[in-house]
Amino acid sequence: MASKNYYDVTEWPVGNPYEDIGEVINSIIADIKSRQTDTDVNKGGKPGAVIYIPPGDYHLGSQVVIDISYLKIMGSGHGFTSSSIRFNTSENEWADLHELWPGGSRILVDIPLEVNDEEYKGAAFYVERSGNPRISSVEFSDFCIDGLHFIEDGSGETNPENTYTNGKTGIYVASACDSFRITGMGFVYLEHGITIYHADALTIHDNFIAECGNCIELRGWGQASKITDNLIGAGFKGYSIYAQNFGGLLITANNVFPRGASSIYFDGVTRSSITNNRLHSFYPGMVVFKENCSENLVSSNHFLRDHEPWTPFVGIDNGLDDLYGLLYISGNNNSVIANHFSEVINTQNIKLVGATPVIIRIVSGNGNYISNNHVVATEIHAKISDSCFSAQVDALLTTEASEPLTVTTVLVEKESLQNTILDSGSDAQVVMDKTVNAFRATPTPGA
Amino acid sequence: MASKNYYDVTEWPVGNPYEDIGEVINSIIADIKSRQTDTDVNKGGKPGAVIYIPPGDYHLGSQVVIDISYLKIMGSGHGFTSSSIRFNTSENEWADLHELWPGGSRILVDIPLEVNDEEYKGAAFYVERSGNPRISSVEFSDFCIDGLHFIEDGSGETNPENTYTNGKTGIYVASACDSFRITGMGFVYLEHGITIYHADALTIHDNFIAECGNCIELRGWGQASKITDNLIGAGFKGYSIYAQNFGGLLITANNVFPRGASSIYFDGVTRSSITNNRLHSFYPGMVVFKENCSENLVSSNHFLRDHEPWTPFVGIDNGLDDLYGLLYISGNNNSVIANHFSEVINTQNIKLVGATPVIIRIVSGNGNYISNNHVVATEIHAKISDSCFSAQVDALLTTEASEPLTVTTVLVEKESLQNTILDSGSDAQVVMDKTVNAFRATPTPGA
Amino acid sequence: MASKNYYDVTEWPVGNPYEDIGEVINSIIADIKSRQTDTDVNKGGKPGAVIYIPPGDYHLGSQVVIDISYLKIMGSGHGFTSSSIRFNTSENEWADLHELWPGGSRILVDIPLEVNDEEYKGAAFYVERSGNPRISSVEFSDFCIDGLHFIEDGSGETNPENTYTNGKTGIYVASACDSFRITGMGFVYLEHGITIYHADALTIHDNFIAECGNCIELRGWGQASKITDNLIGAGFKGYSIYAQNFGGLLITANNVFPRGASSIYFDGVTRSSITNNRLHSFYPGMVVFKENCSENLVSSNHFLRDHEPWTPFVGIDNGLDDLYGLLYISGNNNSVIANHFSEVINTQNIKLVGATPVIIRIVSGNGNYISNNHVVATEIHAKISDSCFSAQVDALLTTEASEPLTVTTVLVEKESLQNTILDSGSDAQVVMDKTVNAFRATPTPGA
Repeated sequence: MASKNYYDVTEWPVGNPYEDIGEVINSIIADIKSRQTDTDVNKGGKPGAVIYIPPGDYHLGSQVVIDISYLKIMGSGHGFTSSSIRFNTSENEWADLHELWPGGSRILVDIPLEVNDEEYKGAAFYVERSGNPRISSVEFSDFCIDGLHFIEDGSGETNPENTYTNGKTGIYVASACDSFRITGMGFVYLEHGITIYHADALTIHDNFIAECGNCIELRGWGQASKITDNLIGAGFKGYSIYAQNFGGLLITANNVFPRGASSIYFDGVTRSSITNNRLHSFYPGMVVFKENCSENLVSSNHFLRDHEPWTPFVGIDNGLDDLYGLLYISGNNNSVIANHFSEVINTQNIKLVGATPVIIRIVSGNGNYISNNHVVATEIHAKISDSCFSAQVDALLTTEASEPLTVTTVLVEKESLQNTILDSGSDAQVVMDKTVNAFRATPTPGA
Repeated sequence: MASKNYYDVTEWPVGNPYEDIGEVINSIIADIKSRQTDTDVNKGGKPGAVIYIPPGDYHLGSQVVIDISYLKIMGSGHGFTSSSIRFNTSENEWADLHELWPGGSRILVDIPLEVNDEEYKGAAFYVERSGNPRISSVEFSDFCIDGLHFIEDGSGETNPENTYTNGKTGIYVASACDSFRITGMGFVYLEHGITIYHADALTIHDNFIAECGNCIELRGWGQASKITDNLIGAGFKGYSIYAQNFGGLLITANNVFPRGASSIYFDGVTRSSITNNRLHSFYPGMVVFKENCSENLVSSNHFLRDHEPWTPFVGIDNGLDDLYGLLYISGNNNSVIANHFSEVINTQNIKLVGATPVIIRIVSGNGNYISNNHVVATEIHAKISDSCFSAQVDALLTTEASEPLTVTTVLVEKESLQNTILDSGSDAQVVMDKTVNAFRATPTPGA
Repeated sequence: MASKNYYDVTEWPVGNPYEDIGEVINSIIADIKSRQTDTDVNKGGKPGAVIYIPPGDYHLGSQVVIDISYLKIMGSGHGFTSSSIRFNTSENEWADLHELWPGGSRILVDIPLEVNDEEYKGAAFYVERSGNPRISSVEFSDFCIDGLHFIEDGSGETNPENTYTNGKTGIYVASACDSFRITGMGFVYLEHGITIYHADALTIHDNFIAECGNCIELRGWGQASKITDNLIGAGFKGYSIYAQNFGGLLITANNVFPRGASSIYFDGVTRSSITNNRLHSFYPGMVVFKENCSENLVSSNHFLRDHEPWTPFVGIDNGLDDLYGLLYISGNNNSVIANHFSEVINTQNIKLVGATPVIIRIVSGNGNYISNNHVVATEIHAKISDSCFSAQVDALLTTEASEPLTVTTVLVEKESLQNTILDSGSDAQVVMDKTVNAFRATPTPGA
């Protein structure tokens, strides 16, 4: 390429990208900065650059540190494959496998971690810049960040590759950022896929983020961002999507699959949308609103909660019982409209604590509007399988030979008042003080 | 490019990409495989590669056979244009046309077909690998697959270019696959655009798939996939989107235009979502659920059914009459909430069999929840035009000078019980046994 | 690159892309045309090309004129940053800023404008072709178009950089077009971002279009297009999204932020969808349907209207008072279902004209269906801040210490009849002639 603002990591004279791509990219960033010397206010002078990572396996020993705007790092392949299935396959079978690892334009995160290191030190890509303006328009596109292994973490998990612990993060943005884009990426076997503080106008679109302890964490506060059209599935301990003190977040068109302690967890989030997603979990607490989450919209989502069908994780869950609610709300004036909930309780590994499972639960706050949600609950004798994929498909497709299950479709706790519950369950299915909340039962046949 | 994992089809020494790009790509794949010899389990060694197809016309005589993971094939242009309009224009006018064919990074599928060939032999790209793991992360991006011509098929269609028959498929995936991506592509004049068996975590996003016999077919079984943000429109015989025995499919943000025997056809699909799409068809049977499709969500979609306005296809339809239903459901516990239906019946070419047209029809299965759907039905004297584009725009915009049409908004057949129908039509518009199904009529003015 | 159909603007022998990229691209287009001489109907011969713009600052003095199909113009960075914040920062502070301008693959629009020039002359990219077929599959991807400055426009605005006036347009399509794609782009400081006449099967997807007078304008007429997954925010005078005489438009998954006189303005649009967006505005008239907009679906959107929190724009608005409605409808048979509305009225700068604010207002037309919308209205003593970002975040997150505000959730004017209003407000909140419109009040607690 003739342009000085196009870099290929395999052509850069400093370092060896196959041995330490971090050193190479940091050297490229230093070169970009050394050339951005124009200070004339009538010119631009700091347009940034693109760094291309062709398909290949690139070890990363040095953390990449980004402190310039308009940097795009791009590859040609998200490279996801399931490492979890491989690590739960007998090593005797490995020689017969076509390939053992993820691929594409793949970063192998080798960062050496010390005990008690701060979290950000385990990040492959670390973005931080103080002063003004906020760092803008950094883009990550079409490559794979692979944390390689999980490790023994004292939890008693016998296979260390199933702990979802390794201290590694794919992309960590520490300071306020504007108009960042993360698209077409693959993230696998990281304790944290994407961690971003203080985001404005962020796009996380069309990525594959799975088999990570946590997938997407938006921390601190932020606004006016979107998480759209991703395939996402965290480990049993973490969040598939987490947001804190956010306003105007749009979470839509995502297919969020198990496991994930929560599919989506909001902490003090307001005036945001969870619409039109497909959410699948093995535990209660699929979507959680904590710390006064208010004026959010949850609509047109498909919630499915069933049970772990794969042998290595049977018996593991997020610790919540079936009274917790698939959708747990603490906050005011939220809207929950036109969602479908399927709850499939497995008679083998039920965790009911002797009570009726809860679908939507309002714990505190006033004025929530719960309307036209359809709950389907069944009890089933499900199969456990040594094959992850076929077990899941089998479970998903099984709707026959099941018994209807009695559930509480909506539970409003006493601390919560002035809610409106419409057409989301029968009189018996909606449990609340009907003198302080508004209610209309879903009509029943023949009634 | 310095990387050995980046290939440009115009630079490869074997074959001539303009004469047979299939030979070139197969040779490149052989080269990739010959270099992926690392068997050390602690390394990777099989990251795949990217094959770049610059804009240009590339004939494909040899089928491309893909049996490696992490292969990305990408171009720089989806290149769609309407071949149908051209083939229905007098040849006398061709000399005056700016261009005659689709373009961009365009594959011209020349595969020679024998009578009674198996279907997969007509595929431009054929993906198949047995053993473990499933083949992963193959990506197709930003190029055009053009089947060139349809052929005389004995149907009596006078113009062979209007048959939607030629035995050709764009991409055919025969074995179980994981985390595939098809994005930014164009497909035109293929009998089958995309045919995929046994998909897991598949992404079909932001493509242009039109003037194909069938556009997207997910066969066998599969799970946790998404078909999002595409422009799609099949021929009158086939499906725009078809899925079989699938769980957790998310179909959203698509603009599905005519013709298409069905916009979306589900065969034994469960716990999936059709949300937030714009669906337009010229026939009944726009969305069909067959073979016990259960616990699916259909919400926030806009359905428009009107009539064929373009001369070459006037009189052709999918064979279904207006009692069939625009949305046809066989299955249990589905949710149909917050959709808009526009039915525009053309008095010239009506196919009513003397009865009242049906919008939503539940044929069998129990426990479906049909709520807050708005049906608008009008009778109109529409125009037929020799110009495809202006005819469609004209029809779309015509809402004046029409008469209200009497329709059955919801019909529940006797075989189906325990359904709930709310605010989706008046007492007269909802036809069912109201003693075995629950019902609340949409309030009427002054009532 | 070996292919003659791949061009890099920095390698082209004619012109200097840094001084006038328009001259360079026009020269490349002339070269493409000179090579597309094949007229054999059995071949293709006109596949187009791709023009690559690496990251960098490229002045554009000559308008790019596009009259060939299958042209893709692509960069490697959308390059957005807020110019508005910079231009409202004291020049004394500029020396301390990390960068002063947007970046990425950035076009600096320097087109000299004369008084009374026609609008299209101010376009950086101008697409026009007469004859048949319509021009197809032109693609713009992953670069930045920067209008640089706004100018004094006689409006009395003291800072000319806040006028949103400069006569410049990013992309202007004058003639009927088919299957165009605009993706991954950045637009900033243009009076018009994207202006397209007579669009068919258009994709505007995943762009960043902000700080423009108007962002997206679809004019004339058009059909079967999508505006999806964009971050958009126009200036106070213009439209974030505007469409005229359109059928089958799908607007979904967008995060539309202030200011924007309207977030979405429809003029004679029919059978289209506004679903699943997050819409935020500082004024009434967020979504406007004018000139008999009919059979459209508005569902699963989150509407937030609050007040301007940033000092430079305090006191500026779109001129509409709070009786206008956040959603204004003139037309027949539209559906408004399952939306959330948050209205936050600031006691400091209220513009109520002594009356009760209106959320949904039907001005004319019959048969609209308004169902299951949740309105939350609060009165608040909000803060104004010199910092744009922190002011907005602060406002978004503030839900405490507020008082409930009395609003009219639905107002149906006398000219409009036969509408159905369900579960979208109490009897007092829904103001209309309840003898000619159908009504069911949202149940109230204890009732």
